[in-house]
Amino acid sequence: MSEATTSIRPAAAPCDRGVVIITVSDRGAQGLREDRSGAELEAYLKDHGYPVRRRALVPDEIELIAGELRTAADQIGAGLILTTGGTGVAPRDVTPEATLGVIDRSVPGMAEAMRAASLAKTPHAMLSRAVVGIRGRSLIVNLPGSPKGALENLAALLPALPHALAKIQGDPSDCAAVEGEKV
Amino acid sequence: MSEATTSIRPAAAPCDRGVVIITVSDRGAQGLREDRSGAELEAYLKDHGYPVRRRALVPDEIELIAGELRTAADQIGAGLILTTGGTGVAPRDVTPEATLGVIDRSVPGMAEAMRAASLAKTPHAMLSRAVVGIRGRSLIVNLPGSPKGALENLAALLPALPHALAKIQGDPSDCAAVEGEKV
Amino acid sequence: MSEATTSIRPAAAPCDRGVVIITVSDRGAQGLREDRSGAELEAYLKDHGYPVRRRALVPDEIELIAGELRTAADQIGAGLILTTGGTGVAPRDVTPEATLGVIDRSVPGMAEAMRAASLAKTPHAMLSRAVVGIRGRSLIVNLPGSPKGALENLAALLPALPHALAKIQGDPSDCAAVEGEKV
Repeated sequence: MSEATTSIRPAAAPCDRGVVIITVSDRGAQGLREDRSGAELEAYLKDHGYPVRRRALVPDEIELIAGELRTAADQIGAGLILTTGGTGVAPRDVTPEATLGVIDRSVPGMAEAMRAASLAKTPHAMLSRAVVGIRGRSLIVNLPGSPKGALENLAALLPALPHALAKIQGDPSDCAAVEGEKV
Repeated sequence: MSEATTSIRPAAAPCDRGVVIITVSDRGAQGLREDRSGAELEAYLKDHGYPVRRRALVPDEIELIAGELRTAADQIGAGLILTTGGTGVAPRDVTPEATLGVIDRSVPGMAEAMRAASLAKTPHAMLSRAVVGIRGRSLIVNLPGSPKGALENLAALLPALPHALAKIQGDPSDCAAVEGEKV
Repeated sequence: MSEATTSIRPAAAPCDRGVVIITVSDRGAQGLREDRSGAELEAYLKDHGYPVRRRALVPDEIELIAGELRTAADQIGAGLILTTGGTGVAPRDVTPEATLGVIDRSVPGMAEAMRAASLAKTPHAMLSRAVVGIRGRSLIVNLPGSPKGALENLAALLPALPHALAKIQGDPSDCAAVEGEKV
């Protein structure tokens, strides 16, 4: 983390407070598997008052995942960026590493809270390597790949989410206008 | 952490086993807010047999926080260094990053134990990004900024604290004398 | 972790799925203390169907520990590498730092699960700085130095271990043959 400290005070970024969902899946990106997790997360978020601004689908490649995370944070200015998939221990599961490479500050307590909630249901929950962190004014949360696991983990964060997003945003007057967009 | 491994075996430092409390607060440092957390921590520690050697007050600036941590560990030789404030997710909350930059070794279990204890009371506890680590012969603990949160988190560590401080100190004969001080 | 990302996709390594146990102890390495933890871990693992391929004994020196970890992962191709000892807060406890220096990917949930299970028994459990991570196709787990603590921590992982090792191995056809060995 220490090499990231120079970028901790973010430059002004747009402040669209919507959500971006990034599904990370080799088979999904090849069109071999339907993106059920992305769809179910989107429906769940809408039900809870969080508008989804964009959904993306990338294979399990660090640079492609990191690129989507940067776009969502720096160009779109999303308040919340969720990934689903690639958090396990298989050789191609690298979503946490992609996330560690782009965040300015880690929020370990949210990752711990997700795992503690899941561990009460299944011992396999300890294998989730999910990372939660902040890039600029965006909260990035890694969720598991299965629809059930993704929703369960997100539900564990929900009670703290409004306060988290409000605090991360800081002073709204610091936001840059999104060109050509209503903010 | 890996770049810190060269400094893991500390050079001899003074072994005053007292406590240093560092309050991290922009408004406190400007004189706009009373340092209640620092005062309450000092009283609590004295009640539990830990003499407070020094209290400091710094704004939420990484380099200033890191400088106080280094002074407390390397010049004062404090056994325990507590920070209060700057552990949240707001843009200027950078106490954990300052701490990560000065510690030789992380003690993640103490941070997890603090959050688990607080999470039983409020879901907002998962937003504490507190770090616990060791620099030389000093244990550094990040506590939240509110007096209630700071005391609650410290209380969660108390049962393990005597053993921790004794072990971290290692062989007392390794300590350097503090110049001009009774040790 | 970010500097390790270039090595996340491991080159073909042998796939002996046995266990290597590394005891980390200055006094053990000097012949001043019997390696009870290593012996008890070996017996426990055999009882649970995990063959122990090799046991090693090293002093609390980062480079020596890291060297044994690399040998176990890269030359022996162990599926599971356990260390016992050196996870505490004493000045010479550096097993976690040695482990952080060789892993490609961290598995924080397994370390959290071990500490949470131990913390239910003793507050000193929060002082374990154990790291769990993956190097190539090997899972590396730091266990405490006492036989009781080591077995207790390992037991906390056991329900997730078969799934973890199968997933980490990935496709068995990727394994390189061990020269002169039956795989």
